[in-house]
Amino acid sequence: MGMPYGDVMNARVRGEERRAEIVGAALEVIAERGYRGASLAAVAERVGLTQQGLLHYFPTKDALLVAVLQERDRWDAVPDTQWRVDLLASLVEYNAMRPAIIQTFSALLGESVTEDHPARGYFTERYARVRASMAAVLRAEYGDRLPNGLTPERTAPLLVAVMDGLQYQWLLDPETVDMPGAFRDFLRLLGEPAD
Amino acid sequence: MGMPYGDVMNARVRGEERRAEIVGAALEVIAERGYRGASLAAVAERVGLTQQGLLHYFPTKDALLVAVLQERDRWDAVPDTQWRVDLLASLVEYNAMRPAIIQTFSALLGESVTEDHPARGYFTERYARVRASMAAVLRAEYGDRLPNGLTPERTAPLLVAVMDGLQYQWLLDPETVDMPGAFRDFLRLLGEPAD
Repeated sequence: MGMPYGDVMNARVRGEERRAEIVGAALEVIAERGYRGASLAAVAERVGLTQQGLLHYFPTKDALLVAVLQERDRWDAVPDTQWRVDLLASLVEYNAMRPAIIQTFSALLGESVTEDHPARGYFTERYARVRASMAAVLRAEYGDRLPNGLTPERTAPLLVAVMDGLQYQWLLDPETVDMPGAFRDFLRLLGEPAD
Repeated sequence: MGMPYGDVMNARVRGEERRAEIVGAALEVIAERGYRGASLAAVAERVGLTQQGLLHYFPTKDALLVAVLQERDRWDAVPDTQWRVDLLASLVEYNAMRPAIIQTFSALLGESVTEDHPARGYFTERYARVRASMAAVLRAEYGDRLPNGLTPERTAPLLVAVMDGLQYQWLLDPETVDMPGAFRDFLRLLGEPAD
């Protein structure tokens, strides 16, 4: 005999709530202690679980970090019809105010290119999705060709590459690298008017 | 009593030769087994040292990997007077033929942004040097302003960011991402004629 249907549903909802609570706690611990300081033990303590109890929800630190990045993707999501190229500059400006999550993204992206890394699937799918989304934004703004003659589809990987690449330079040397300013320069290359 | 001067010099030369041999072996092991497969034990075996013996030359795997990347920087170096913007496209083309070292660079770059990472100094200094070098290349090609109005100094971080960012997209999904083609697209944005 299994659980009655209502109890199964309640258990599932409680499980999802618990997972969401753990992801939120992980984000807090990352913000306070950085990528390396965010241990499973520290996250478990914050939500009142044993480390063993936490492993029931997230079997590894990498799995928990991927869940944190997925949650950030959901928060940052803008409906495709609402995106504008200048909003991207605001997003980069916003990212410059939250180094801990950018550090987590950048560190995990680095690890993900190694053999059989558990975050590889997340980043590969995310890139495919983000490139498609950026191409749609560029098409809405510029039509089938940008002022420089490139198509939106060929420009999208460059846009994403500049955002990611600037994050590394900025994380390593925030005093020297003006990430939002450099990204606005890139938008000028695409044909945005100078401010 | 120390060693006579000649013997001190010989010991130093022998030590440097041994280090160079280890770095070469590490590059081979990385090429064959990838970033994660390149253990200190595998490198030690290739040069006929115990793992303890290897640690005398490189105290950690990260220290050895940084030495491999420094050696690659030396091989890839082109005198500043010889650089041309179109040579950068050739460099990216060349990089697409050697995924193992690009994977090593990208994985270690990711780790380097975490707290107190031993590779942080290497990457921070390398970026400062490479941005300055790229600015000089752009100035030799375009003068004080590129066709789009940006200065060489403001364009250099974008050039470096695109190279690094495209590497992640390409390493994760080499079938989808044409890294050399995308980089040539970026050079068109800078004002290079289309081919």
